[in-house]
Amino acid sequence: MGGAPRQFTLAQLAQRFGLELRGDGDVLIHGVATLASAASGQLAFLANPRYRGQLADCSAAAVVLRGDDADTATMPVLVARDPYAAFAKISALFEARDAHPAGIHPSAAIAADAVVDPSAHVGPFVTIAARSRIEAGAIVGPGCVIGEDCVIGKDCELVARVTLVTRVRLGRNVRIHPGAVLGAAGFGLAMDAGRWLNVPQLGGVVVGDDCEIGANTTIDRGALDDTVLEEDVRLDNQIQIGHNVHVGAHTAMAGCVAVAGSARIGRYCLIGGAAGIVGHIELCDKVTVTAMTLVTHSIREPGEYSSGTPMMENRQWRRSAARFRQLDALARKVNGQDKENS
Amino acid sequence: MGGAPRQFTLAQLAQRFGLELRGDGDVLIHGVATLASAASGQLAFLANPRYRGQLADCSAAAVVLRGDDADTATMPVLVARDPYAAFAKISALFEARDAHPAGIHPSAAIAADAVVDPSAHVGPFVTIAARSRIEAGAIVGPGCVIGEDCVIGKDCELVARVTLVTRVRLGRNVRIHPGAVLGAAGFGLAMDAGRWLNVPQLGGVVVGDDCEIGANTTIDRGALDDTVLEEDVRLDNQIQIGHNVHVGAHTAMAGCVAVAGSARIGRYCLIGGAAGIVGHIELCDKVTVTAMTLVTHSIREPGEYSSGTPMMENRQWRRSAARFRQLDALARKVNGQDKENS
Amino acid sequence: MGGAPRQFTLAQLAQRFGLELRGDGDVLIHGVATLASAASGQLAFLANPRYRGQLADCSAAAVVLRGDDADTATMPVLVARDPYAAFAKISALFEARDAHPAGIHPSAAIAADAVVDPSAHVGPFVTIAARSRIEAGAIVGPGCVIGEDCVIGKDCELVARVTLVTRVRLGRNVRIHPGAVLGAAGFGLAMDAGRWLNVPQLGGVVVGDDCEIGANTTIDRGALDDTVLEEDVRLDNQIQIGHNVHVGAHTAMAGCVAVAGSARIGRYCLIGGAAGIVGHIELCDKVTVTAMTLVTHSIREPGEYSSGTPMMENRQWRRSAARFRQLDALARKVNGQDKENS
Repeated sequence: MGGAPRQFTLAQLAQRFGLELRGDGDVLIHGVATLASAASGQLAFLANPRYRGQLADCSAAAVVLRGDDADTATMPVLVARDPYAAFAKISALFEARDAHPAGIHPSAAIAADAVVDPSAHVGPFVTIAARSRIEAGAIVGPGCVIGEDCVIGKDCELVARVTLVTRVRLGRNVRIHPGAVLGAAGFGLAMDAGRWLNVPQLGGVVVGDDCEIGANTTIDRGALDDTVLEEDVRLDNQIQIGHNVHVGAHTAMAGCVAVAGSARIGRYCLIGGAAGIVGHIELCDKVTVTAMTLVTHSIREPGEYSSGTPMMENRQWRRSAARFRQLDALARKVNGQDKENS
Repeated sequence: MGGAPRQFTLAQLAQRFGLELRGDGDVLIHGVATLASAASGQLAFLANPRYRGQLADCSAAAVVLRGDDADTATMPVLVARDPYAAFAKISALFEARDAHPAGIHPSAAIAADAVVDPSAHVGPFVTIAARSRIEAGAIVGPGCVIGEDCVIGKDCELVARVTLVTRVRLGRNVRIHPGAVLGAAGFGLAMDAGRWLNVPQLGGVVVGDDCEIGANTTIDRGALDDTVLEEDVRLDNQIQIGHNVHVGAHTAMAGCVAVAGSARIGRYCLIGGAAGIVGHIELCDKVTVTAMTLVTHSIREPGEYSSGTPMMENRQWRRSAARFRQLDALARKVNGQDKENS
Repeated sequence: MGGAPRQFTLAQLAQRFGLELRGDGDVLIHGVATLASAASGQLAFLANPRYRGQLADCSAAAVVLRGDDADTATMPVLVARDPYAAFAKISALFEARDAHPAGIHPSAAIAADAVVDPSAHVGPFVTIAARSRIEAGAIVGPGCVIGEDCVIGKDCELVARVTLVTRVRLGRNVRIHPGAVLGAAGFGLAMDAGRWLNVPQLGGVVVGDDCEIGANTTIDRGALDDTVLEEDVRLDNQIQIGHNVHVGAHTAMAGCVAVAGSARIGRYCLIGGAAGIVGHIELCDKVTVTAMTLVTHSIREPGEYSSGTPMMENRQWRRSAARFRQLDALARKVNGQDKENS
């Protein structure tokens, strides 16, 4: 971060991102904000129709929106087919990035045979163990622990306090948030004469280019083969990925999802918050799972899947829940009556 | 911790906390314990009626309880309207607190323009980045990472290994347990030409006075505006709070709750363990949500809300679950019969 | 890790683990793999019948399997009653273990009155506070924080970034994965005049021999008595154990389970992923709980227990869910009809 605040004319933004300008192109934009809170000099956006009503009272200098909404705006606008994506790109111009100068903080504990590219940043209190490699432009923030035989690819960012336990290979431009743990020994147990026996976890974790891994998310290493995330997979916070799971490219999971061992998830899937996926099953591409659904068997058709019951006022819910217990008897009675009646 | 063990007469405790003493006020109390395990010299409490039966065999020197229960006690008692709250206050007298001398551990890595009050404690292996401020009496335990532009208010305690990523402002007397991550980039994604695009997360996190945040809990920073916890909010362990969530004062959430982005939760709400709250909805004040409920729409009336089904023996559950699949057909049949019958 | 790769003849393995050899005992084994990926020189295993079909195309040098499956194998085999357990033991021969030389890393911050056995390993950036003790052969990996009055028993391994807050006593041979937090103050709150009051958490955590605790799992310390794990308890990642919970020996929990305060769980229980157990209830020995089940009351009979509804295609699910709301009315109608009909 640092330097003078950046600013652009609306015409400059229109040209840079291929958007249609309507209104005064000389308007100066020096920041971004929501429709509700934008002040003069700020650019807002309208993507979700439920916020359309906020346009009338909006004090933004300009707004990014769809063509359909342009006529109702009283300020200059940038017309975009996808206003949210356009706004994301414009916002990036105003993002303050932390300074991460190349070099290794003197406190870092780095094994003699680890390799750190001179253009990488290694922060305070970082440990890098034997045979691991940090590639060009990578950022390893404060307190990270990089175990043995790991690779952190070009331009990766480990924000802070990330742990790669062992045999974790990250592609390029992977971003990992604080507290995430990759490559811990998976939960492999065999019962032997009344006691648990650990099954050694000999595999690693492979993470493709452009993946993002949220705060306090855990991804266990494989038992024999690797646990794999293909490219551009996006995992939110506090997700648990068991050993030998395979996640296809461009799949996104919201917070607190739990995926059990050896599940195989396709590409472009969307997994809702706190959903669960049991082990050893397969989801094809383009499966959407709604929040808190438990996926108990393989899914072979793209589409949206759910489980659970609707939220209700508690007393009313108790009645339905009590009837759920008796549901089989109820159905038998209905079917039996049916026969009697016919 | 340290010094001689503390002790008080029962009369001293009665006076200090405004409780009614019945029995020998000279009894010496040097510690607290449960009804079941209390030994001589220890004070126990009875708040939950289900433990009333333990009073007869209790070896405590004295007991804190309601007036209704006082007659059945054979030992001296302190009568309180709310024995649990009274016991909490008395317990605090016997709590050993870790020593946290003022000053900065020599290993800490602190930016030149960060400000640490001389009365604050900064432990080993702490990183404090540019423009952050640690106020009087605050404790920053071992391994904490404080990113840029953060404020840690007066008398806050970050127990250990807490991460404030960036733009996190804590009020006074906030306590944060190990592994918590505040201010990580929220999960903001736009699909653009078949790949995910990151939406910059330009906001921060604001935490009011007297809040408590559990171990490994995560609170993302806002996309444009801030994520906000009002005063006296209590979050247990492993809770996930998405970007731009707003939590009202005095609301408490049990472990493993997940709150999606831009949800707005009222004051004095009680959210049960592992419950989920979807994004962009609103809960009014004084809403109670039972454990593992998924809140899928706004709640405008105070009260208790639930979803899910009751726990059952598995074989019996399988029958009900199979019938749930056919529930619409079953209902149609019943309603159809109804018409035929009428 | 290090040294020449290990190898064994099949006959040596048969003898060492008491397995029946069928075929050429001179075959050299230098590693282990899955049936699908094994190459020459590698040993595979067949335990799960669903992978039986992979035996025909398997390129492994040898396979561990049950007697029933031995005839269909074309390569030499080791016959085991429990192939998975036998394979686990054999795998351990090929596991590369990180080097952990005895001694204390110079960066570690250790209290004057803490005791570290000379044979223990203490890694970089470790904090050990007053009156804590690290016993013989224990490994305390990088970035661990050991608070006051803790004991780390003989041969324990804290992989990295583990926090023991205070009064945590580990038995022998306990393994704890990164990010786990033991001994944080439990979630004890009393409402007092409209504000939350903290109930001091004066107990500790006791962990028996041979327990394993997963990455980012949290185990709170007791309020008055201790939170207890008996021996050989196995906890996967991101599990939350509330204060004063008691977990019986040999019980295993899959990822993301949440156990509320003062629950008491028996021995040899199996708790499925993301299941929840409410507070102050009791589960007897040998209870199995399926994934994402909420256990709301005590269980007194061994067996398998479940809650929830099956996963369905979303549109179909919506219909069932809508009917769940009306379930009590539906049942009344059916029962009413029944009376009318009779």
